[in-house]
Amino acid sequence: VILVNGLAATSIPVEDRGLNYGDGLFETVRVHAGKAPLIDRHLARLRAGSEQLGIPYPGDGALRDDVGRLLGRAADGVLRLVLTRGDGGRGYAPPRDAAARRIVSLHPLPASVNAALAVGLCATRLGSSPALAGLKHLGRLEQVLAAAEVARAGWDEGLMVDQRGQVIEATRHNLFYLRGATVCTPPLQASGVAGVMRGLVLDVQASRGRPVETVPLRYDELHDIDELLLCNAVAGIRPVGRLAGRELPGRSMYAALRDPLAKAGVTWLA
Amino acid sequence: VILVNGLAATSIPVEDRGLNYGDGLFETVRVHAGKAPLIDRHLARLRAGSEQLGIPYPGDGALRDDVGRLLGRAADGVLRLVLTRGDGGRGYAPPRDAAARRIVSLHPLPASVNAALAVGLCATRLGSSPALAGLKHLGRLEQVLAAAEVARAGWDEGLMVDQRGQVIEATRHNLFYLRGATVCTPPLQASGVAGVMRGLVLDVQASRGRPVETVPLRYDELHDIDELLLCNAVAGIRPVGRLAGRELPGRSMYAALRDPLAKAGVTWLA
Repeated sequence: VILVNGLAATSIPVEDRGLNYGDGLFETVRVHAGKAPLIDRHLARLRAGSEQLGIPYPGDGALRDDVGRLLGRAADGVLRLVLTRGDGGRGYAPPRDAAARRIVSLHPLPASVNAALAVGLCATRLGSSPALAGLKHLGRLEQVLAAAEVARAGWDEGLMVDQRGQVIEATRHNLFYLRGATVCTPPLQASGVAGVMRGLVLDVQASRGRPVETVPLRYDELHDIDELLLCNAVAGIRPVGRLAGRELPGRSMYAALRDPLAKAGVTWLA
Repeated sequence: VILVNGLAATSIPVEDRGLNYGDGLFETVRVHAGKAPLIDRHLARLRAGSEQLGIPYPGDGALRDDVGRLLGRAADGVLRLVLTRGDGGRGYAPPRDAAARRIVSLHPLPASVNAALAVGLCATRLGSSPALAGLKHLGRLEQVLAAAEVARAGWDEGLMVDQRGQVIEATRHNLFYLRGATVCTPPLQASGVAGVMRGLVLDVQASRGRPVETVPLRYDELHDIDELLLCNAVAGIRPVGRLAGRELPGRSMYAALRDPLAKAGVTWLA
C-alpha cells in the first residue's frame, strides 16, 4: 500500500528530483502493535532535515494522516516515509516554486536474524560530506555497495569505516561501544546518519544521569572491544555476537538499556 | 518526450532504487544539428560506471535505439539518460535479479548565458567519497545546495572546494587552468565527476602532444590565475570572464582548444 501526496498510487513522475538528484530525505518507521511509537521523533528529524535543505516541509498533519491510514493495515511492519523536493526540470538548482512530494509505503518486517548479530568490516569506505553529514538523504549508494559486501560475505551486518580509519556506523545501524564503564558512540560531524534510535538512546542515557560520550573509534581499537551494540528504528538495539569472527561476550549495555527503552516506547526488544 | 525502457512513459514505479537510494547513474548528452556527436563517450562512461557499481548494463544497442528515437524530435537540445538498478524492495542490498531501468528524455537547451561566465566560490563544500569519486551517480544533493547558492548570488556558475580547500569543479562543469604554459585540471580521486567533455579535452591535448597535467588547485591559488576554463558536454568549453568579482583576461586555452574540439565533434562553440 503506497500513498503519494495522500493518494493511493504506485508511481511517481520521471521529473521527481528525488530520482534525478537524490534531492530528498526518508524515514524508516517501526510499526508495532498497530502503532508507530517513535513517529514524533521521525517527523521532528524530517522537519529539521527539510529546513536544512530548503525543502518545503508539508507539515506534521499531512504526514500523520498518511501514516494513520496505513497503520490499520498491519499490526507489525515498517513504514517508509520519503520526502522529495518534488518535480523540477533539468538542472541542479531547486525550482523557486518547489512543492515537496511525500511518499508513504508499508512493508513487512525484515526476516529476523540471529538475536546477536554476526558483523564484519566492509571494504567500502564511507565518504565524508560536511554539508550532508547526519542527514538520512536519498543518496545512499555507499550503503548499497557495502550492503552488497555484507550479502556476499553472509554477515548479518557490516561496519563502515571512514577515510581516516574511524568506525562510523554499520550499513543500516548506528553503534554504541564501551570505553571503561562509559557508553560511547562515534561522532557524525563528517559522515553517517544521525539515527532516530541513536537519538533515543542518547536521551535515555542522559535522563538516567549517564550521558553517552561521543568519542571517535579507530578501527584498530575494535580488537579491544568486548561489547558492541547496533541500533536502528526498526530493530531497536541489538548486541553484536561475533565481530570479524571473534566472539563478543559483553551484554551489559544491552541489559542496561532494555528497560529504559521499553519505557520510552521500544517495547519489542527480546 | 520520455522513454522508460524504450516505451513512452511519464512515470516510474515508487520502488525504483534510483529514487530510494540514488542507486543509478546518468548522462547529459548534447544534441546538435540533429545528432549526438559525443554519444560514444557517454555510453562508454555509463557502461564503465555500471560495471563499477554492479548495475546490469542494458547494452549500447538499447540505449542507442532510445536516443535515435528522440533525436528526430529536436535539432538542438539535451538528452538525459538515466540508468537505475530498477526495482528492489526496502533495504540497501541490491536484489539478485536486479533489472536496470533506463529513462531517456529530451529537454530544450538551457538559456544561453554570457559568453564568458561570471563565477563565484560556493560555501557548500564537496565531500569526498573514494567509492564514488568520478561517477555521475544520482546522489547530487551537494550540487543542488551549491546551485541554490549560485542562483541566490546571481552568478552564472560556482566553484566548489573540497574539505581540504582544493578547488575540484564547478556545480555542473569541470575546470581547466594554466600553470605557466601548461594546461592543468584538478585530480578527481576523492571528489567530483569525471565529465565527458573533460575526458575529450584530455584526449585532444594528448593527441596534440600537449598532455594536460592533473595538479591540485588550492583555493587561495585562484588569486594568481588569469585564465580559467569550464567545460561540460552540453556547453563544450567556456571561458570564465569574472572570478569572484575579478576580471580574468586570459583566453589562450580557449583559443587553443576551439579548433581541435571542433574536429572532435564539438562544432557548436562560438
